[in-house]
Amino acid sequence: MSRFQRPRGTRDLLPQEMEKYSFVEEGLRRTADLFGFREVRTPTFEHTELFTARSGQGIVEEMYSFHDKGGREISLRPEITASIVRMYLNEMSHAPKPIKVFYISNCFRYERPQSGRLREFFQFGAEVLGAPLLEADAEIIALSCAALHGLGLSGFVVRIGHIAIARDMLRDAGVPEAEWPRALHALDKRDFNTLRQLLSHHGNENSSERFETLVTTQGGIETLGEVKPLIGHSAGMEYLSALFERLSHMRVSQPTIDLGVVRGLDYYTGMVFEIDAPALGAEKQVCGGGSYALTEVFGGRPVQSTGFAMGIDRIVLGLERQEFPFPRHGVSAYIIPVGPKAVEKALELLSELRSAGVSVDIEMMGRSLSKALEYASATSARTSVIMGERDLASHCATIRDMRTGEQKTLKLEALVDHYRNA
Amino acid sequence: MSRFQRPRGTRDLLPQEMEKYSFVEEGLRRTADLFGFREVRTPTFEHTELFTARSGQGIVEEMYSFHDKGGREISLRPEITASIVRMYLNEMSHAPKPIKVFYISNCFRYERPQSGRLREFFQFGAEVLGAPLLEADAEIIALSCAALHGLGLSGFVVRIGHIAIARDMLRDAGVPEAEWPRALHALDKRDFNTLRQLLSHHGNENSSERFETLVTTQGGIETLGEVKPLIGHSAGMEYLSALFERLSHMRVSQPTIDLGVVRGLDYYTGMVFEIDAPALGAEKQVCGGGSYALTEVFGGRPVQSTGFAMGIDRIVLGLERQEFPFPRHGVSAYIIPVGPKAVEKALELLSELRSAGVSVDIEMMGRSLSKALEYASATSARTSVIMGERDLASHCATIRDMRTGEQKTLKLEALVDHYRNA
Repeated sequence: MSRFQRPRGTRDLLPQEMEKYSFVEEGLRRTADLFGFREVRTPTFEHTELFTARSGQGIVEEMYSFHDKGGREISLRPEITASIVRMYLNEMSHAPKPIKVFYISNCFRYERPQSGRLREFFQFGAEVLGAPLLEADAEIIALSCAALHGLGLSGFVVRIGHIAIARDMLRDAGVPEAEWPRALHALDKRDFNTLRQLLSHHGNENSSERFETLVTTQGGIETLGEVKPLIGHSAGMEYLSALFERLSHMRVSQPTIDLGVVRGLDYYTGMVFEIDAPALGAEKQVCGGGSYALTEVFGGRPVQSTGFAMGIDRIVLGLERQEFPFPRHGVSAYIIPVGPKAVEKALELLSELRSAGVSVDIEMMGRSLSKALEYASATSARTSVIMGERDLASHCATIRDMRTGEQKTLKLEALVDHYRNA
Repeated sequence: MSRFQRPRGTRDLLPQEMEKYSFVEEGLRRTADLFGFREVRTPTFEHTELFTARSGQGIVEEMYSFHDKGGREISLRPEITASIVRMYLNEMSHAPKPIKVFYISNCFRYERPQSGRLREFFQFGAEVLGAPLLEADAEIIALSCAALHGLGLSGFVVRIGHIAIARDMLRDAGVPEAEWPRALHALDKRDFNTLRQLLSHHGNENSSERFETLVTTQGGIETLGEVKPLIGHSAGMEYLSALFERLSHMRVSQPTIDLGVVRGLDYYTGMVFEIDAPALGAEKQVCGGGSYALTEVFGGRPVQSTGFAMGIDRIVLGLERQEFPFPRHGVSAYIIPVGPKAVEKALELLSELRSAGVSVDIEMMGRSLSKALEYASATSARTSVIMGERDLASHCATIRDMRTGEQKTLKLEALVDHYRNA
């Protein structure tokens, strides 16, 4: 035991856990690559104002903040989109459009530990900057689905809405624009009491039912036609039709309409979407995104932007829940020299195999053959190469398949080719 | 422009810069894998005491520290070894030995910005815990060399020393053990005045010359024999002979003896080594390591440990200095639908190619063909697929090689196979 523990709310990823994260992160990277997105990396901390400008002053309570040597307040990033937009404005605004970037990064939230949520967590996200909305929105949704599909996450549900529909309805109901954030927040939280109070205050309590219809509208694209008489005309509804048509050409399988996807934050401007993995139960959301207007908030010129962020920890958990067979990364060969005279030959073979691109480890502990084989098993080595002194006298070694226990004897000079072609 | 800038001393890795980091990090990961090391990930911050226990109270001045919600002081990690040892003691001490782990992680130093050094930087490191020293030391040195060699870093120099040699000489010179840290620190800094004062205080000023010989001893393994008459007998010298013999069996090419590698920190116990990349000039050290005793410092049982850390930023810089041809990651195909009628077919091809594992992007901006081809060039696309309405009428598309400008026309149904086999 150590007299030091890791800080509360953090985790150590031991080799077996880390293999799962590597599997997921490599898969996400591969899919982003297939889609022509390019990876970027921003600093782990930013000036605190960057995050309050995006998310409001309330975010300060949820961040790790401290002071720079220059006395400025900085915070560990709670999310990455703000940094991407800052980076775009500072360094990429003259790059050829569209800009398609992705990141795989850790983020931090400063919650009290009793909530059981991790204080350091990992996100995969992507942004398209400077493309027409329809094209960018479709690309972002297609990427998020392909990424999860590519990992083998089963049964995930993509729910797509449009923030303008609720806004249009609030305008129709006579709610002044200044109160929309409060109203949208209430809708997002399904807090119909607050919403009804707001509507009745503006003499339109009756329209409350329309809002309840709105947030419970879920289904295929045909749903839009069904609810139109109830919730009225909206450019957002037409946009969703066009988006679903593009998604169907892109073979994005079965996204659903969910007009209840509202997302609380003010800077969302159009399409908004979420992806759930039902296996995760109450914490089932693995992805959230939409089109947004942040450059203006940061004092830059407007640029059309769409993005998403997904939780890598939740994806790993979702795959674990569905008993996904994560690959295990044992070495191809575990070399066991039996007796001190075999060590020199064993080290040479070790180096030759590694040079040939074969992953190899060697018994270092001087254990008995049976103990060494136990270690090879425990570390998932695929084969062992047993180099006994008698074998070596005839320039041979014995290869043991660690799964089946089968053994065969090979000439030393044939070993490298054997493994290279395996 | 944004009204927000990134914090001083941090960097944004834009796509082209990030490609270099990915190339380096993937290469390091691949080599660690070949050697049977397994990746781990520890929290970005730890309790401050963990780092002061390892490195002394002085480290506090160089760290980003803040308070936990529980009131405990935590710090952004300045290095990873302390976390690995803590993790080992907390969670891995019963795992089969040896434990061979590696990490690729960001670290933080809180220097005044004028020094020009990065406040957030990236490290690759590895540790072997619980193996006999000779075997572990050789494995760690072999891995560090293979990692740099695998990346194509040229002309790097591996310098290996042994901390016990200097300690034995201090004992011979009558310097009491309590003063060794000060003496070793002076040796490390080549501060011979301080050293001479210390020696003369203990009536042995004459031996100062021997220490100067020690720290200037550099060369092949034969150097050990040459300096033996001058600096006396030491178990450390015998150990280095055995280590070099093992390294030669492992085909580690030309490590050098450098008895001047002292490394200031107390917990180094045996072999110590450094790797320089001369292309980097004054800041030429890319790697440092050695065998150490940290578990005891953290209140745990002793376990033999050897490790190294190397600076990823310096490796990238070193490769840049030698004009290394980093691979560029453009998509295999950039699809350009010419005219609105081509869009639907283009989207279908896009999705088919991506499903087949071909990286593809599509023109989203509705630009002219020549402007779209410019974008394809600028983003390093290898080919463009031009889908004009006339071509489509005969179920064809034109593939343009973006490097040579060559074009050929293919049937649509042959395109996926064409790219899959490319």
